[in-house]
Amino acid sequence: MAGGKKAAGIEPLQRLVAGDLSRVNDVIVQKMQSPVALIPQLAGHIVAAGGKRLRPLLTLASARLCGYEGERHIPLAACVEFIHTATLLHDDVVDESDLRRGLDTANALWGNKASVLVGDFLFSRAFQLMVSDGSLKVLKILSDASAVIAEGEVHQLLTSNDTGTDETAYLEVIEAKTAALFAAACRVGAVVAERPEAEEEALERFGRGLGIAFQLVDDVLDYSAEQKALGKTVGDDFREGKITLPLVLAYSRGDESEKAFWRRCVEDMDQRPEDLQHALQLMQRHNCLDECLARAADYARDAHDGLSIFHDGPIKQSLLDALDFSVARAY
Amino acid sequence: MAGGKKAAGIEPLQRLVAGDLSRVNDVIVQKMQSPVALIPQLAGHIVAAGGKRLRPLLTLASARLCGYEGERHIPLAACVEFIHTATLLHDDVVDESDLRRGLDTANALWGNKASVLVGDFLFSRAFQLMVSDGSLKVLKILSDASAVIAEGEVHQLLTSNDTGTDETAYLEVIEAKTAALFAAACRVGAVVAERPEAEEEALERFGRGLGIAFQLVDDVLDYSAEQKALGKTVGDDFREGKITLPLVLAYSRGDESEKAFWRRCVEDMDQRPEDLQHALQLMQRHNCLDECLARAADYARDAHDGLSIFHDGPIKQSLLDALDFSVARAY
Repeated sequence: MAGGKKAAGIEPLQRLVAGDLSRVNDVIVQKMQSPVALIPQLAGHIVAAGGKRLRPLLTLASARLCGYEGERHIPLAACVEFIHTATLLHDDVVDESDLRRGLDTANALWGNKASVLVGDFLFSRAFQLMVSDGSLKVLKILSDASAVIAEGEVHQLLTSNDTGTDETAYLEVIEAKTAALFAAACRVGAVVAERPEAEEEALERFGRGLGIAFQLVDDVLDYSAEQKALGKTVGDDFREGKITLPLVLAYSRGDESEKAFWRRCVEDMDQRPEDLQHALQLMQRHNCLDECLARAADYARDAHDGLSIFHDGPIKQSLLDALDFSVARAY
Repeated sequence: MAGGKKAAGIEPLQRLVAGDLSRVNDVIVQKMQSPVALIPQLAGHIVAAGGKRLRPLLTLASARLCGYEGERHIPLAACVEFIHTATLLHDDVVDESDLRRGLDTANALWGNKASVLVGDFLFSRAFQLMVSDGSLKVLKILSDASAVIAEGEVHQLLTSNDTGTDETAYLEVIEAKTAALFAAACRVGAVVAERPEAEEEALERFGRGLGIAFQLVDDVLDYSAEQKALGKTVGDDFREGKITLPLVLAYSRGDESEKAFWRRCVEDMDQRPEDLQHALQLMQRHNCLDECLARAADYARDAHDGLSIFHDGPIKQSLLDALDFSVARAY
């Protein structure tokens, strides 16, 4: 965000595709119905909590950017949101996180069993939506993304509590678990518009850069005061022993006594009340958060460049505003 | 099984498609590879434990029964096994079962987190295999089956610890969670052979009847002495408060004191060491296990009739032998 200008945020994006997004929400509500009452209850909880609908917005806007005027992007945007929601449900199970987006997690309210199985249901519904679309090209993009996401989630699990995790491994994890779906959500927009491969790839590049920047900033926010303003607690990742880039940098730059501190806290999971504060000080000392944000800005620039082949216009501008916001929300 | 003749079992089926099955196993091993080492480790554990490969055998034999001589049934049979394996992994998480097929569950060895996420990976791999096949008809059959399975698993969760569950609800659950995949596995065999709709439906009917009979017998075995011979413990369902047909029948036929007993054991989950023995006596008194097996025999007969449109021959006979075995193993 150049020159301290206030970020437009994602509101322009939401406004430009508001009609489409409302129809996506209709599809979501309709497709989570089931005679098994727990399914719409639990899925409704998590979809209602569902935040900004960033991923389906990307599909809608990408299709419009490519001049698409048909209907296929609506169910496919719902499909993308279902894949995301299923991942959240399964992530809640495994992370034993207590709060997400300021609401009780489905897991806390209904238990692990229900979260796993309703997640499976939403994932299956996502595939049914793709199959109904009928394009093998779309099916390949989204089924490949699903496999990459699952692989990334397992990889992340393996890096948990492991201070040996390096920046390369961290980036592999977030590319897989977060950026792959952003990239696929964008690419699908070009595919339904039947645009040349170059536009598919440009949108995929935009989505990937945005996704990585978004996740980097998310991981910074977990250690930052701005977090409180968002109604979230600070230090969840630290308390869970989750290894994100701020910690990777702090560990690699720490002296022996600092390394011992990190190992005690996130490998042995032996944490005392004052440890989070000390962790924040070490990150400050080694400039870790700012450096993560600089990395995020690099990826955002690459995402920005991805869109250069498209003509300027309100849709393109709204995507760039959303990109700016993904980084600027940390400030 | 007429006249007490010894069941041929599933060996003839395994023998007739042995070459195909070996290639299915190759695809399974190849497609569970990942640079994330935990994935092949955990998936390998559960696939190796994988028992009889009944579901992929059904796809292979159904294709052959329809005269198919191509290659598509091989990856699709692997796909069916992956869907089944993913379901097992997620079922282990939620049921907290300690043993499956005499081996430690993946869940007990690697934890809930890994089981959920590796299950998701296998499920995604299954969809990639379908997409590679490229038939929207096959994709629809298997994605619909996946959604029905997930719905059935949630439905089963809701019937847990609920003595108000009736036979209709029980049958809905097992049709969804078990029979739907058997039916789809069979139907896909006719689809790849490009046979008329009537043969697809005949094989689906066979698979559905076989699946219901198979699950009914499984649920009887959990209360039966034959179980010990299979290296499993008796009474797992009872101890978990899982509501299967033997218990549904025993509850509905019990007097008030018997009903109070069942409610204490499976609703309040207040169980004493002697309760399982008493439960078995009540089932004996009300003839519940024999009656479940009679129901299984009815479904097996319907499955048998499903195959009547096919000419007799070794493949058809091997499928009927497998059907006989699914019921006969209870005796």
